[in-house]
Amino acid sequence: MRTDKFVPDIATALREAGVRDGMTLSFHHHLRNGDFVVNMTLDALDALGVKDIAVALSSVFPVHEPLIGHMQSGLVRALDTNYVSGPVAKAISQGIPAQPVMFRSHGGRPRAISEGSLNIDIACVAAPCVDNMGNINGSQGPSACGSLGYILPDVEHASKVIAITNLISKEPLRSISIPHNRVDYIVKVDTIGDPAGIVSGSINLTRDPVAHAIARNAQAVIRSSGLLRDGFNYQTGAGGASLAASQYLREDMRRMGLRGGFLLGGITRYMVDMLEEELFDAIYDVQCFDLASVRSIAENAAHYEISADSYANPSQKSCYVDFLDTVLLGASEVDVNFNVNVHTDSGGILIGGSGGHNDAAAGAKMTIIVAPLVRARLPIVVERCATITTPGNTVDVLVTERGIAVNPKQATLIARLKEARMPLYSIEELRAMAIKITGTPQKLALSDKLVGIVEYRDGSIIDSIYAPME
Amino acid sequence: MRTDKFVPDIATALREAGVRDGMTLSFHHHLRNGDFVVNMTLDALDALGVKDIAVALSSVFPVHEPLIGHMQSGLVRALDTNYVSGPVAKAISQGIPAQPVMFRSHGGRPRAISEGSLNIDIACVAAPCVDNMGNINGSQGPSACGSLGYILPDVEHASKVIAITNLISKEPLRSISIPHNRVDYIVKVDTIGDPAGIVSGSINLTRDPVAHAIARNAQAVIRSSGLLRDGFNYQTGAGGASLAASQYLREDMRRMGLRGGFLLGGITRYMVDMLEEELFDAIYDVQCFDLASVRSIAENAAHYEISADSYANPSQKSCYVDFLDTVLLGASEVDVNFNVNVHTDSGGILIGGSGGHNDAAAGAKMTIIVAPLVRARLPIVVERCATITTPGNTVDVLVTERGIAVNPKQATLIARLKEARMPLYSIEELRAMAIKITGTPQKLALSDKLVGIVEYRDGSIIDSIYAPME
Repeated sequence: MRTDKFVPDIATALREAGVRDGMTLSFHHHLRNGDFVVNMTLDALDALGVKDIAVALSSVFPVHEPLIGHMQSGLVRALDTNYVSGPVAKAISQGIPAQPVMFRSHGGRPRAISEGSLNIDIACVAAPCVDNMGNINGSQGPSACGSLGYILPDVEHASKVIAITNLISKEPLRSISIPHNRVDYIVKVDTIGDPAGIVSGSINLTRDPVAHAIARNAQAVIRSSGLLRDGFNYQTGAGGASLAASQYLREDMRRMGLRGGFLLGGITRYMVDMLEEELFDAIYDVQCFDLASVRSIAENAAHYEISADSYANPSQKSCYVDFLDTVLLGASEVDVNFNVNVHTDSGGILIGGSGGHNDAAAGAKMTIIVAPLVRARLPIVVERCATITTPGNTVDVLVTERGIAVNPKQATLIARLKEARMPLYSIEELRAMAIKITGTPQKLALSDKLVGIVEYRDGSIIDSIYAPME
Repeated sequence: MRTDKFVPDIATALREAGVRDGMTLSFHHHLRNGDFVVNMTLDALDALGVKDIAVALSSVFPVHEPLIGHMQSGLVRALDTNYVSGPVAKAISQGIPAQPVMFRSHGGRPRAISEGSLNIDIACVAAPCVDNMGNINGSQGPSACGSLGYILPDVEHASKVIAITNLISKEPLRSISIPHNRVDYIVKVDTIGDPAGIVSGSINLTRDPVAHAIARNAQAVIRSSGLLRDGFNYQTGAGGASLAASQYLREDMRRMGLRGGFLLGGITRYMVDMLEEELFDAIYDVQCFDLASVRSIAENAAHYEISADSYANPSQKSCYVDFLDTVLLGASEVDVNFNVNVHTDSGGILIGGSGGHNDAAAGAKMTIIVAPLVRARLPIVVERCATITTPGNTVDVLVTERGIAVNPKQATLIARLKEARMPLYSIEELRAMAIKITGTPQKLALSDKLVGIVEYRDGSIIDSIYAPME
């Protein structure tokens, strides 16, 4: 009979796991802006006096601001992430990290882990519920966040795995995200996160008429594309136009009497509604965005937790994005070659990252970018993206409120949309239309300070990010 | 968008998977004596003209008799298994395989796979239900067998994975044993097995008074051991005395108002009944033995499929057997050092193998061997086991219908059973008691022909099996 895995605090777990200078520790972002685990663990590392840690955190939120101080102190040498927001994003643009940040995608990260180019020494799981053996799920307890999909590849490959939790179940778990046989240590803390920040409570539909105009155009493209039929597989983000488009999709599917296959990706209550209405057979969930989806994944057998490996890792034998019919994605910029930027804004400042953007675009039969023609008085279409997140050869349609541009390689789709009398333009025409409103934008001025490297999902380096001139 | 994985037949799948002489192909035994997949695949290999294949099949049943011909023809060079029965067992004892059979345990096999000493080129999954992406479950379709636990480590590590199925689901699966990202090829065949042989329909309780006397004694040991309290974790096999003992356990738990933790291992309706009665919180199921458990695993969220890794692999960070309070196991022989044989009969002929025997014995707080004092006119207790399956230092109690022997190292347990006035004897006394009935048995006569190697769960070689003299 093995002795149990419980240790009194995070520092003890780290010490017993053999932490030392230069190691890579991994974290996940399912607790989003409510996460306390990254900050607590970095504080524990600081107290232990270790240095030069690489932090592999699937996404960075405003709550992770203390990372900046740890970068300045030398505790954190490197950051490996798929998405950044808030003060840390700004600090990266200011060149604070000791070395350029490695930006991956949600599928590229598990590829790097499974092929060994991202080697994880210690994986730290923010674990909403753990039983006495070490089985973990994300669906029970005061910090329930639903799916734990993004940390599953990490626990498969990490040398040591620490579960940090605020709920120990006396009963053996009946729903298991991470089996006990992958878990070395269990630490009980008072709280792993702020429930108000973990999920968005509920994400509400926008009333913005521009977003609705984009959404109506996007759904008209889907309706006319020939892809909308029984078994239709769909992904969308949680942006305003994307959510609104899902409502128009829902109305179309009801009217047409269709039954889709699966809904994929980060999940909101709008997808849960469609599942419960039996417009789709299943939700494959790598991350829950709101309380309705957390509840649904706990209760509905058709709402299924998946790992980042099966979601989007291109080195697997297949991944769910391969089977998408359509994905709706946002953009900060789209260039005349259909390349998309979701890393930086028009001033070159970091505002995001791929997440699953370039994964879903590569997999889907039809990738639609939804964006306003003009944003912050600047045209959405540019000559060349400041940063390329998603290559243009994986992007099929740009939908704005004023018009639609289809990648010229999609001849069949162009013919179908013409037949449906959609407002088609060349992407250069959309650019000209926007410039007429905004005037020609200033050229972006960048310094020679390299702050980020953008790795495409397949491991190739697709772009570099330089700090803007001050 | 990837092209799909469907190939027209098993031979094509094998050819596309790059099969060649000398490779190791793995199979699982969840279809038990109804399995057609092993025989069909060997026929396809034969038609392709390959030779010297190593077959890693988790357990061998009478239906696998054609293996003998394939061993004689040179198609099958080696067999790696955890359990053998029927004609193949007999053929091994006759020395028919070209090389000695490697006998592992249900936990030792996934250990060997994960450490690389059992390297699988192609894993062949007998898949009751597959969707269009390649997701597999064992719970749907005409050949539903429930848990697919024993093949899960294989598909994690095999170079290529072939799913052989008789049911393609048009809808994406809502319950997934093996995710599509592990599956290379899908082959649809008319049938993967004979439902009548897949599960036992229902396993019925014995009326044998000896079995019931053993069972009553075993349950009295459990009741007196101090282990029977809330959270009690329990495993038992499907032998007559074991099943009967579960009924006495059930009565005790009802009477005492206890709620156990988990039931583990190969599952029967007697365990399902206890789960449904809420005498236990969960069933962790690596294999279903009857139709009631197949139904239960499909319908009851508290009846959970687990992999052989989490069940019993000793190289994992923990395994379920580590958390057992009590396991009841059978024996062909027990020797005076409490070593147990479940590989060979008293004539030295192969009749089984460890399965999970030595795994559960190593993990459980109290391992009880249940056996009649005399079987086939021979004493159950011997001077030295013909084959050691499970070492005596992991065995705590031998329970027979006439008396109970406790391993002398268990002083506390002996004291408790004495206090409860159990019929305690030394194991030598039990041996003497049996010999008084049977007379001194003949010494076993073995040849010098090595037919089997017994690997303990940790990878050490614990015994060798020689063919009996003809």
